[in-house]
Amino acid sequence: MKIVIVGASGTMGTYLSQALEKEHEVIRADRKGKDVTVDITAPETIEKMYQQTGTFDALICTAGPTWVGPWKNLNNNTFRSGVEGKMMGQINLVLIGQHYINPKGSFSLITGALTHDPQKNFANASAANAAVEGFVRAAAIELENGIRINAVSPTVIEDSPQYFPFFPGEVPVTMKALEFAFRKSVFGANTGQIIKP
Amino acid sequence: MKIVIVGASGTMGTYLSQALEKEHEVIRADRKGKDVTVDITAPETIEKMYQQTGTFDALICTAGPTWVGPWKNLNNNTFRSGVEGKMMGQINLVLIGQHYINPKGSFSLITGALTHDPQKNFANASAANAAVEGFVRAAAIELENGIRINAVSPTVIEDSPQYFPFFPGEVPVTMKALEFAFRKSVFGANTGQIIKP
Repeated sequence: MKIVIVGASGTMGTYLSQALEKEHEVIRADRKGKDVTVDITAPETIEKMYQQTGTFDALICTAGPTWVGPWKNLNNNTFRSGVEGKMMGQINLVLIGQHYINPKGSFSLITGALTHDPQKNFANASAANAAVEGFVRAAAIELENGIRINAVSPTVIEDSPQYFPFFPGEVPVTMKALEFAFRKSVFGANTGQIIKP
Repeated sequence: MKIVIVGASGTMGTYLSQALEKEHEVIRADRKGKDVTVDITAPETIEKMYQQTGTFDALICTAGPTWVGPWKNLNNNTFRSGVEGKMMGQINLVLIGQHYINPKGSFSLITGALTHDPQKNFANASAANAAVEGFVRAAAIELENGIRINAVSPTVIEDSPQYFPFFPGEVPVTMKALEFAFRKSVFGANTGQIIKP
């Protein structure tokens, strides 16, 4: 299977690339141009990325910039980080990518527990995550040719201990569990699902 | 109680204004300037509206433009209708309005069943609704001075029969039930809730 991983040099992307490349053709996409370059906040770079990858079987996105910080600094400008990044960035990966993906291919996006379990400083991510999840459910009944779409929604992850203090009482998700959630999305048959690792 | 209703000349806004003005001071806001003028897609007009209303006890928003149409025409441009309208429009009403609302005041936003029950042609609304709901849950743990925030999430409503064909099998919500859901949000004590009429 030919799998494009967007955000391939991040914590999750690195782990997933290494886990999947043993059995699959993995194309690593990120802002620094590992195999291909993409900035998901710029739709024209998404189109260019797909022109370079050509047709593919699965897209995994682990890139999702949002604005993190005190509520008092959250305004129409700071809110745009998550709108252009985690939300529209991922939505555009699908809206554009549907013209390049093979029949029966799949999109696996990243959201997070903040959709339903908010934490202070992360309202922007709560909105962006929720938007992507709403989109995933809607896209699942619109996409044609057997193309599937799911989101993986972890809480704080094991390999990002710098976030632990912001998520009191949350048991970190192991990288292995995260990998398995993406495997369920990519290699399973469900669509429109929010998969919690 | 001094209640600002944004979208006051729409189907829901008209009904709610008439229902609430018997017992409360209702300020009707819309794009055409009923009592005050506001275009929720333009944050500067939101600030101007609040300068005119002055301090208030409750804000109800029933305005939520989104893009409706065939999936093949959904792209980064058409998607912006819901992003700037129902999503950021309502989020900005809160981010700006928190500086004008009285202690123990409340924000009541509008979302919809499409968050979890998608229908063809409405993916933009599914994403915008979900974003607002994620924001409502997050804002509820951030807002200070006892200020509350909820969303009312109806399916298709009784007084908008033009939408019935797009919502097969959905029992329309009566205007009375819709009014009661907003009453629960405004006059009840809960916060961070998605209220289904």
